[in-house]
Amino acid sequence: MSDEQVFRSARDGFRWDGVERRPYKDEGEAPFKDISRQALFVDERLGCELRYFEMEAGGYSTLERHEHVHAVMIFRRRGHALVGDAVRQVETHALVTIPPMTWHQFRATRGEPLGFLCMVNAERDRPQLPTEAELETLRQSSAITAFFDGTKPGAPD
Amino acid sequence: MSDEQVFRSARDGFRWDGVERRPYKDEGEAPFKDISRQALFVDERLGCELRYFEMEAGGYSTLERHEHVHAVMIFRRRGHALVGDAVRQVETHALVTIPPMTWHQFRATRGEPLGFLCMVNAERDRPQLPTEAELETLRQSSAITAFFDGTKPGAPD
Repeated sequence: MSDEQVFRSARDGFRWDGVERRPYKDEGEAPFKDISRQALFVDERLGCELRYFEMEAGGYSTLERHEHVHAVMIFRRRGHALVGDAVRQVETHALVTIPPMTWHQFRATRGEPLGFLCMVNAERDRPQLPTEAELETLRQSSAITAFFDGTKPGAPD
Repeated sequence: MSDEQVFRSARDGFRWDGVERRPYKDEGEAPFKDISRQALFVDERLGCELRYFEMEAGGYSTLERHEHVHAVMIFRRRGHALVGDAVRQVETHALVTIPPMTWHQFRATRGEPLGFLCMVNAERDRPQLPTEAELETLRQSSAITAFFDGTKPGAPD
């Protein structure tokens, strides 16, 4: 590896030398809003990848579930996360583990960006989206409904 | 997983709920100074682990090499890193990739702590320490000698 590949400096604005800021997913593949991805470490010699995702204020990741696990660290500012049936405010440097087959979503609920690091297995299954019936079940929780609506992100905790 | 396992808050001082701050290595196993480790994500469902290492001012990690790769993000303050024959100043959020069988060491050279995240394969080979002859070869570089001496950490870059 060249020194430029070994050492990559951080730039202002949560960017990195040699790292492209890309769309979160292909448009239309799944619901999401105002979120970008940067692949910080993708290396076939590593069993995992490390990515940085950032939402603008009001943005959100896709509500989804899958067999693989996500290991998340909140990296910029704060917002809210849904994991299973729990909605929680998440602050800078908090750790969030997404267990297998557990509905999850991150939302920049605080009028500011929300960024997080996500470590994930390089080989992994495709995410599943909720059916209308599954969404209906989730919405039986008032905290989750408020989280989805984005304006009243649940009781403070 | 319980909500307490799913959501772990960050505390002041680069600590986390439910994460123990432990010795870097067993004493006497290898040379190091004033460095601690915290295992942020160790989960058999993940192919990697994410750890946080922190040195006090003047501290350093072990000079070593191994077949496995390290994916490092500088997380607290700044210092210097040796990777192969390159000594570089490393700043907050910089990315450092340690290729296979490459001598590497981190040093808190700036009179302040240096902390970094390190992603690594869960299954990995044991580190090797340099022989006296290998150290002698490394010291043929004045930048590396200054880095080892800790007081003159190479030319600014």
